[in-house]
Amino acid sequence: SQAQPIEAEKVQELHVYEINERDRGSPVYLRLSNKPVNSLGDLVPFSNKLYTGDLQKRIGITAGLCILIQNKASKNGDRYEAVYSFYFGNYGHLTAQGAYLTYEDTYISVTGGSGIFEGVKGQVKLHQIVFPFKIFYTFYLKGIKDLPEELIVVPVQPHPSVEPSPDAKALKPHATIAGFTD
Amino acid sequence: SQAQPIEAEKVQELHVYEINERDRGSPVYLRLSNKPVNSLGDLVPFSNKLYTGDLQKRIGITAGLCILIQNKASKNGDRYEAVYSFYFGNYGHLTAQGAYLTYEDTYISVTGGSGIFEGVKGQVKLHQIVFPFKIFYTFYLKGIKDLPEELIVVPVQPHPSVEPSPDAKALKPHATIAGFTD
Amino acid sequence: SQAQPIEAEKVQELHVYEINERDRGSPVYLRLSNKPVNSLGDLVPFSNKLYTGDLQKRIGITAGLCILIQNKASKNGDRYEAVYSFYFGNYGHLTAQGAYLTYEDTYISVTGGSGIFEGVKGQVKLHQIVFPFKIFYTFYLKGIKDLPEELIVVPVQPHPSVEPSPDAKALKPHATIAGFTD
Repeated sequence: SQAQPIEAEKVQELHVYEINERDRGSPVYLRLSNKPVNSLGDLVPFSNKLYTGDLQKRIGITAGLCILIQNKASKNGDRYEAVYSFYFGNYGHLTAQGAYLTYEDTYISVTGGSGIFEGVKGQVKLHQIVFPFKIFYTFYLKGIKDLPEELIVVPVQPHPSVEPSPDAKALKPHATIAGFTD
Repeated sequence: SQAQPIEAEKVQELHVYEINERDRGSPVYLRLSNKPVNSLGDLVPFSNKLYTGDLQKRIGITAGLCILIQNKASKNGDRYEAVYSFYFGNYGHLTAQGAYLTYEDTYISVTGGSGIFEGVKGQVKLHQIVFPFKIFYTFYLKGIKDLPEELIVVPVQPHPSVEPSPDAKALKPHATIAGFTD
Repeated sequence: SQAQPIEAEKVQELHVYEINERDRGSPVYLRLSNKPVNSLGDLVPFSNKLYTGDLQKRIGITAGLCILIQNKASKNGDRYEAVYSFYFGNYGHLTAQGAYLTYEDTYISVTGGSGIFEGVKGQVKLHQIVFPFKIFYTFYLKGIKDLPEELIVVPVQPHPSVEPSPDAKALKPHATIAGFTD
């Protein structure tokens, strides 16, 4: 058995939805710049809910910090530096860092993980659907074993009207992953 | 000579103690949420001392930020997102990110390192002994050369009464690693 | 084709300059400690400009947060924990974490990347030239394909008088990388 060279290393795709259901007191906009326009100096801690790509199961939460870098008047939006984690219940977590732009998609670095994600490398595409309440992520992950089937689902195509299944929202046992994070 | 496949990559265990001796002005609880209960919006910069697992040598410090994510009234504790480093003097440092729960153990992602830890991957188990003053860590590290013997010691079992050796606390030369971080 | 063992993995060097041209409102020193001397509790969001090592092309920006860890009176300086990214326009970005000391060089961990830097591992040497306005970085990167030629240039030796070329400062098309970050 031989390790794969860089070029041939297997990439696994993982789709998840991050949804702000406005019940976690998130985000908190700390206007530490003391300026009327969003400015460097402002910090935005946040934590939202995570669902599988088919919106049938609650996975857990996101948790972290957005650092306001610059208001982009021409784009009617903001550039943030985001440092956060994605929690997958008993499966473990993924850590990520990179640009969150309120006006276009970005690729964020996957910096590590725990549990089934231990030793992971890769990146994740952040696709914003409804600012700042619905985000669709596509992870491209390397260096880990095959992901469990309940995470590798055919995703619902991102659209402003997407919603988690009522059972997933209600945390029915069949609609959560084991030990889902809350 | 062939690289190891994912399954067979060598894992090195490393035990360290993080101890808050209340002499570094740490932690600082920034109640930026302006709420009476710990809430999203609060930030907690911190820096504590690091000792080898046998408590015979001072290694260095931890340094970083805890982001309060949610108070867990039912657990009588808090969930934090922690982003920090472990400094090992001339050996270099390890970076880490993940959940710090004041009421149970967690696994945190090892996101990178410098010096002897350059290119590292892995995770670290955070075992709390006395909140928030004594923590026992077990690192599971891959992708690096054999760790130096003075770091790979038989650890003292975690217990509320553990203390660094008097010589390590006093920074006697034989009780510090080379270039220990302070 | 076989993967390389740890010892033989190819290391690519990459030199860049980070320059604060005082036109981005950076850094912002948030004196949240409420102490007259820089102290744990203070936070410093920042974002500066990035140029190629030969100072002939604008690459993009840095963006992130410095966490004040300790004032070092004996060194007439400060220890920070830095968590930030280096943005390389259409090429992607690198993420980094580690110690920023205002009085000596450090090695910082490269924790990940996107685009051409996806899956990267390594470290970066931070060499301060003029505090806090000019920094010279040497990245040591593994696990990625050969870097593009326009990034792999013979660097100008670091010196207090170094300046980006007038064309790079003026963002002339031939003096920027594609899609440079701003």
